[in-house]
Amino acid sequence: MRTSQYILATLKETPSDAEVVSHQLMLRAGMIRKLASGLYTWLPSGLKVLRKVETIVREEMEKAGAIEMLMPVIQPADLWEESGRWEQFGPELLRITDRHNRPFALGPTHEEVITDFVRKEVSSYKQLPLALYQVQTKVRDEVRPRFGVMRAREFTMKDAYSFHLDDACLEKTYQIMHQAYCNIFERLGLDYRPVIADTGSIGGSVSHEFHVLAESGEDAIAFSTESDYAANIEKAEAIAPATERAAPSKDLNTFETPNAKTIAELAQQHGVKAHKGVKTLVVYGPETEDGERGLVALIVRGDHELNELKAEKLELVGAPLEMATEEDIVAAIGAKPGSLGPVGLDIPVIVDHSAAVMSDFVAGANKDGVHYSGINWDRDATGYTVADIRNVVEGDPSPCGQGTLQIKRGIEVGHIFQLGSKYSEAMNAGVLGENGKNQVMTMGCYGIGVSRIVAAAIEQNHDKFGIKWPQALAPFDIAIVPMNMHKSHRIPEIAEKFYAGLKAAGLDVLFDDRKERPGVMFNDMELVGVPFTLVIGERNLDNNQVELKNRRTGEKVMLDIDSAVAEITKLMA
Amino acid sequence: MRTSQYILATLKETPSDAEVVSHQLMLRAGMIRKLASGLYTWLPSGLKVLRKVETIVREEMEKAGAIEMLMPVIQPADLWEESGRWEQFGPELLRITDRHNRPFALGPTHEEVITDFVRKEVSSYKQLPLALYQVQTKVRDEVRPRFGVMRAREFTMKDAYSFHLDDACLEKTYQIMHQAYCNIFERLGLDYRPVIADTGSIGGSVSHEFHVLAESGEDAIAFSTESDYAANIEKAEAIAPATERAAPSKDLNTFETPNAKTIAELAQQHGVKAHKGVKTLVVYGPETEDGERGLVALIVRGDHELNELKAEKLELVGAPLEMATEEDIVAAIGAKPGSLGPVGLDIPVIVDHSAAVMSDFVAGANKDGVHYSGINWDRDATGYTVADIRNVVEGDPSPCGQGTLQIKRGIEVGHIFQLGSKYSEAMNAGVLGENGKNQVMTMGCYGIGVSRIVAAAIEQNHDKFGIKWPQALAPFDIAIVPMNMHKSHRIPEIAEKFYAGLKAAGLDVLFDDRKERPGVMFNDMELVGVPFTLVIGERNLDNNQVELKNRRTGEKVMLDIDSAVAEITKLMA
Repeated sequence: MRTSQYILATLKETPSDAEVVSHQLMLRAGMIRKLASGLYTWLPSGLKVLRKVETIVREEMEKAGAIEMLMPVIQPADLWEESGRWEQFGPELLRITDRHNRPFALGPTHEEVITDFVRKEVSSYKQLPLALYQVQTKVRDEVRPRFGVMRAREFTMKDAYSFHLDDACLEKTYQIMHQAYCNIFERLGLDYRPVIADTGSIGGSVSHEFHVLAESGEDAIAFSTESDYAANIEKAEAIAPATERAAPSKDLNTFETPNAKTIAELAQQHGVKAHKGVKTLVVYGPETEDGERGLVALIVRGDHELNELKAEKLELVGAPLEMATEEDIVAAIGAKPGSLGPVGLDIPVIVDHSAAVMSDFVAGANKDGVHYSGINWDRDATGYTVADIRNVVEGDPSPCGQGTLQIKRGIEVGHIFQLGSKYSEAMNAGVLGENGKNQVMTMGCYGIGVSRIVAAAIEQNHDKFGIKWPQALAPFDIAIVPMNMHKSHRIPEIAEKFYAGLKAAGLDVLFDDRKERPGVMFNDMELVGVPFTLVIGERNLDNNQVELKNRRTGEKVMLDIDSAVAEITKLMA
Repeated sequence: MRTSQYILATLKETPSDAEVVSHQLMLRAGMIRKLASGLYTWLPSGLKVLRKVETIVREEMEKAGAIEMLMPVIQPADLWEESGRWEQFGPELLRITDRHNRPFALGPTHEEVITDFVRKEVSSYKQLPLALYQVQTKVRDEVRPRFGVMRAREFTMKDAYSFHLDDACLEKTYQIMHQAYCNIFERLGLDYRPVIADTGSIGGSVSHEFHVLAESGEDAIAFSTESDYAANIEKAEAIAPATERAAPSKDLNTFETPNAKTIAELAQQHGVKAHKGVKTLVVYGPETEDGERGLVALIVRGDHELNELKAEKLELVGAPLEMATEEDIVAAIGAKPGSLGPVGLDIPVIVDHSAAVMSDFVAGANKDGVHYSGINWDRDATGYTVADIRNVVEGDPSPCGQGTLQIKRGIEVGHIFQLGSKYSEAMNAGVLGENGKNQVMTMGCYGIGVSRIVAAAIEQNHDKFGIKWPQALAPFDIAIVPMNMHKSHRIPEIAEKFYAGLKAAGLDVLFDDRKERPGVMFNDMELVGVPFTLVIGERNLDNNQVELKNRRTGEKVMLDIDSAVAEITKLMA
């Protein structure tokens, strides 16, 4: 492709509304343009990268035995009503009505449609297991679309669904898909991790996310230093401390803390170390039969953070977790948040494992501006429940039993689920079993954010000059930059020869034939992230040579004109 | 692919709601399933055909110098307001609002979005010409979706747009695209015609449609018997008769026609031949300054049909053409439709060329139940305008000057337009010209109904047993049908060998390994339309042979087992 006939669309300035580096670079490298909030046009070079991801995803899906199909973006409401998600889903589900005023949704995912399809088309256990997938435009009306294609309202996703007679068969396909996902991210040349994950609004039992590791990632992931164990921090188990609680050595005493409402203020004003105090958070419990919602206290060590997802799964709490208002807290306990603690507290109390092994600790006295020191469980506070309700921290023992945990940031690019019978039961999707009786199918679902992968790859592969594409994702294999082409006779001639020669060798070549200064052309090729640039200049031609620059390593080598195409082809293979 | 691991989904019965053969066969061959009115899921074998069309379309677009990009399905309303089409478009434009109540449309086409893109990204004449395209999901909320994917609400389209400094350059690209379209339909193996067409709601001056010829086609196309001339009947010019009008030979006389309101009834009851009478149709004229709409009479020969599009283009009529109500006609003329004619008619009268050369003809007397015979223009009726307002008929002289016209039916699968500056002017899309001054771009647009091609190909290529795919479109290259596989030892062994061997030879093989009767398997392969079927049976194996059936020709040949793969490969190349 000649740049003169292309839409290169590179930008010198960083657009002010782009917060993260991948969004900035995708705009600057001419990969995408914003049409409206969360809606992006893919320019030619951006689309080429997107298609490379799609191709690898398709190939690995086929290898895993999944069969491609294509479902509509527009989905009738009645299927979502059958599954119960028409009510459950928030406004992210973009609901529309057609000209006859019939309700539809623009699909963020296709569990309902595929389950409906399979219940109609598959009638016998002999047709199972079956894995189907599609690569498709999805819609999610995000409340705050951001980070470019990372969190867009219209995006490309690969979603696969598998159907089985029993969970053992599901487990087997799940493992094959897990491996297929690993293959995909390997082939894309990305540093990634599969991590144990929560199933969220999709549902099911077992689930893994696939994360591209990058400092800018929205998710925190906990890894074992010694094993393959990795989990999203919202799901990583905090092992109960093996040490027993020390016997009380201090008496319970109050002290005045008029200006200390947080652990940090307690430390600063009263010298209480964070791990010697506890935080008491008050939330609403589940609704009772008479429509009331009581309060529940959640207690974690001062240097720990509450894990909301873990709390939500406790019967005493329930989802969604909701912090109690100050008004309700004062009415029930008689003190404001900041002065709360377990001593004499007359609501259900859930104590994190790590807080439950503390002795002689500090907490609020349930009286404004007063704390206790020397608190000891069972002696001073009783009737509590112990559970895992905190986020793990670096150095915690790994739940796998080997090593300790490290925390890294990741961008979620894939998510696989053992759905079980959540959808098939709600939608009555069964087959005739071997015994001749109807049997509800069990399902898996497997998603990859195809367009998000493009952004995640850039978050992981860039420098201050632009994108450093892994070879599998680069929009072009090589660029030809002839220096001052219009001032010379032989430079255009030789550049054209290389353009023809490299194309004939099967390479995807970007030939920068613009009448631009060499600096402008070099900057553009670095910004776009073409892995190799072949520089053709007068001085080197005098020695019968051209220069090859490697974008990732920065390395430059001189090649003889006559053997250059062959050497480059070898290098790329 | 093994059928046992596939979703073949063939149906024995013809679904009752499928009106046309392509819709019936796409359902029966397991290519599509209806999700809701006008919304279809593409099953694996259907999607394979769709992708084959896409691939050929892409390759020819690239060869024509167009560059692929991808725009969102969801488009902001403000761009449509800028072009004026937010108001102009009917309810086919599916309008939606997002969670913040902002208006959007689901794109049926992308003139607005691409013009907005190019006006922002292209600033100089040096960047022109530029041709961009996408293969994308489009939405059109049809009032009556029908014929399966032929007229669906969500469908796949290739839309290309070109931008130029002047019309000469547009004309050049238009010709390149015209050729690219011919190449596409050639490669698809379809009998097609490019025809002169109206520009409709897209706009512009010159336009061609590409039609796949099929008896079930919705459009009538007029062809010259001697030249390449072809036009959609709505656009085909009816040449004014070369013969002069004969002099009057009869007097004007009335006769009673109480039960003859149509040309057919006049013929039956009074022996008036259709071509000796005229039809007088009364429509509304354009609104005058005081908001009134007068009536206009349109007169065509009794055996001719009014061409509404031609009438709409006359200043005296205007678009959209609207037939006057009986009430308004009676009020203005004093007689009901069925007894109208040009004699003494006090509203503007437009007479078709062929009606204007008639002498001694019959028409209504503008008095209920009475007709005139012996009418002669100028003597009995004056003050009329002559114009081309009828559909051409078989045998008319071709407007190209060579031969006469034939009429065939076609399915519109492509449409290309010289848009000129319709969108670029409305949306202020200009570039700096060579003279340093802003110059509005001129545009072309080029659409192909990718999913509709699949249906059109079936309309053209089928028999009572199923689909007869052209090789370029077939979902599989060859099927292997082992007869009574589970009753034999050597049959499965040899079938597996062929499966491996044909796949290794690069063929896309459907291996029917179901435990079905041979008849069921043969019927399915014919229905699906696999071009070749390799039959493996005991009796032929005794002679060391297998049978190869050709779906299109019905021909059967015996092949030696050892050389069969090589011979089949040669045949396919």
